[in-house]
Amino acid sequence: MLHARPYEMLPEVGDRIADIPTPRPIIDEDVMAANIARVQAYMDGHGLAFRPHIKTHKLPSIAKAQVAAGARGINCQKVTEAEVFADAGFDDILITYNIHGARKLDRLAALNDRLASLKVVADSRETVEGLSRRFAGEKPLVVLVECDTGAGRCGVQTPADVLELARLIAGLPGLIFGGLANYPKPGAASAVQAFLTESIALLQQAGIACPIVSNAGTPSLFDAHLVPAATEHRAGTYVFNDRGMLKAGHCTEADCAMHVLATVVARPAPGRAVIDAGAKTLTPDLFGFQDFGLVVGHPQAVIKGLSEEHGVLDISACNDTFPGIGEMVRIIPNHTCVVTNMFDTMVFHRNGVVTRVEDIAARGLVW
Amino acid sequence: MLHARPYEMLPEVGDRIADIPTPRPIIDEDVMAANIARVQAYMDGHGLAFRPHIKTHKLPSIAKAQVAAGARGINCQKVTEAEVFADAGFDDILITYNIHGARKLDRLAALNDRLASLKVVADSRETVEGLSRRFAGEKPLVVLVECDTGAGRCGVQTPADVLELARLIAGLPGLIFGGLANYPKPGAASAVQAFLTESIALLQQAGIACPIVSNAGTPSLFDAHLVPAATEHRAGTYVFNDRGMLKAGHCTEADCAMHVLATVVARPAPGRAVIDAGAKTLTPDLFGFQDFGLVVGHPQAVIKGLSEEHGVLDISACNDTFPGIGEMVRIIPNHTCVVTNMFDTMVFHRNGVVTRVEDIAARGLVW
Repeated sequence: MLHARPYEMLPEVGDRIADIPTPRPIIDEDVMAANIARVQAYMDGHGLAFRPHIKTHKLPSIAKAQVAAGARGINCQKVTEAEVFADAGFDDILITYNIHGARKLDRLAALNDRLASLKVVADSRETVEGLSRRFAGEKPLVVLVECDTGAGRCGVQTPADVLELARLIAGLPGLIFGGLANYPKPGAASAVQAFLTESIALLQQAGIACPIVSNAGTPSLFDAHLVPAATEHRAGTYVFNDRGMLKAGHCTEADCAMHVLATVVARPAPGRAVIDAGAKTLTPDLFGFQDFGLVVGHPQAVIKGLSEEHGVLDISACNDTFPGIGEMVRIIPNHTCVVTNMFDTMVFHRNGVVTRVEDIAARGLVW
Repeated sequence: MLHARPYEMLPEVGDRIADIPTPRPIIDEDVMAANIARVQAYMDGHGLAFRPHIKTHKLPSIAKAQVAAGARGINCQKVTEAEVFADAGFDDILITYNIHGARKLDRLAALNDRLASLKVVADSRETVEGLSRRFAGEKPLVVLVECDTGAGRCGVQTPADVLELARLIAGLPGLIFGGLANYPKPGAASAVQAFLTESIALLQQAGIACPIVSNAGTPSLFDAHLVPAATEHRAGTYVFNDRGMLKAGHCTEADCAMHVLATVVARPAPGRAVIDAGAKTLTPDLFGFQDFGLVVGHPQAVIKGLSEEHGVLDISACNDTFPGIGEMVRIIPNHTCVVTNMFDTMVFHRNGVVTRVEDIAARGLVW
């Protein structure tokens, strides 16, 4: 049962992609299934547990396919996302976020009561003490120490800091020390392995068990076996892939399950085309590129600017072959995860025919 | 009646802003009202009709306040947005977009049948002929010629092109030539005036009436009177303002009605703070800046990177005074219009107390 508003211009099952009102992202069922199978086979081959991050699709049916293929559980970023997936039947959820605020902590406690396995991360005394104050006297919460292994975002900075925070977690009421989690920068497997190994050794010397070591990332996902200290790997983007993963060497263009359909609405001057996908569709996420997406079949076209509902292309290198006004183009977005989050519904297809249309259940849940 | 999903962490009327789960944009009622009044007074003072663009708020109640203040009608960008506002009672709508596709044209025709005044723009023979094919034999559609007066997006390139397209519109069944529309680059009033004046003269010589000349833009809105050829002005961002409008000199920091509330979730290393507002809240829209927003009261803090749910700040220039873990910051976003579009609901306040919570009725309607 779709919850789409009456204003949405949605296709129906059996419709042809060529007839879908644009702009809209679409997902190729077969490419997505192959992505899920390929990554799970790699993890299985290396004896690594796999925990997909739902941020890329925000859709329980896809997480079910990931778990059916062999994934251990799922990874969410926010409490509300975890609620959506708990309601859909998932009972092993890791929330990789420092959780603050009375209302979020209350809802986290309610989640912890109903799930077989809920885990969160923390990287500071303040976060850990806040969790302990809320969970003291309740079902204890499993907390992993988040480690900054080089990405420069959250995480404690050294193995000695890991030990100190793990001791705090283990000693405070309401909390159970669950292990380590990190989000690395791509291509840094040896640095990650060194940080984790040293941390585990310090914990072992201190007599603190470290059951979970959760490494992450799609870009260098196929290097996950180079971090044998990890007990599991988390990744999200691999399920759809995007131009960023293409550039990172993780996939080929044929492995990109998400295309954004757009229509050429103007050819106002030589060398310029305008499409109906702008910042409210593709998002202005450069993701390390100089322009805003890859036009399938027209790699020389440059999506040089986005306003809210227009994409402006420099097509001077492919003027003659670029589609005319009213014709459709397909775009591989720089970053799929942020495109998914723009739309209330996702359209799936096989061989150009719509197979299903689903609510993006956790869209926009950023708390 | 709110249509929010149960997962949203919404405040209630009377709640204090300090207790709102973050991240979330909030709108100061008094600042917004002053923005509406100030711009309308300017337009009234210069005898210019004013047509607010709803892209910034996507919310009928705000458009009603704009019309109550004296605005002539509203400006939408997509057919579905216009449907939302038509359902809310608006009957004078200009859609500034080249409309293609059978389904959109059908819904445009239905809108045209029910509205007192619906107008669209076109900048090519292909777009105009498509409209004529659909509207021949129906209630005629008013079409304005979109002019590229220097912004380099859509629009015909010269006054001679204006005349040619106006003649086509005037001669085809189902269409009425309504005049001109443009979206200028900021600070180019004299070039806009020259383009429009020459176009109007050519139309006059050809005996073609040009009732509407619709100029636009917030950044140089207070230069609208320097384009006397225009009969009306369109603008959206002025209602909330943002860091972009601040930089353009359109407003002061005190005129920014939208603040994004965020919580400091980590201080992992000296000089680094992490907030819970990332690309799925602030959007990665640089809007000409080098970083992703202005932290109110901490102008030396640099929001240097966004991942989906994290904002990473360089606070090395304000380490000692920057809020600690668990504390709230307020951010003036680079670009308000794209932030509004991330959220299903908007929270309004006066003096830090929530006054209302409303569905962002046209969020995500990009067709």
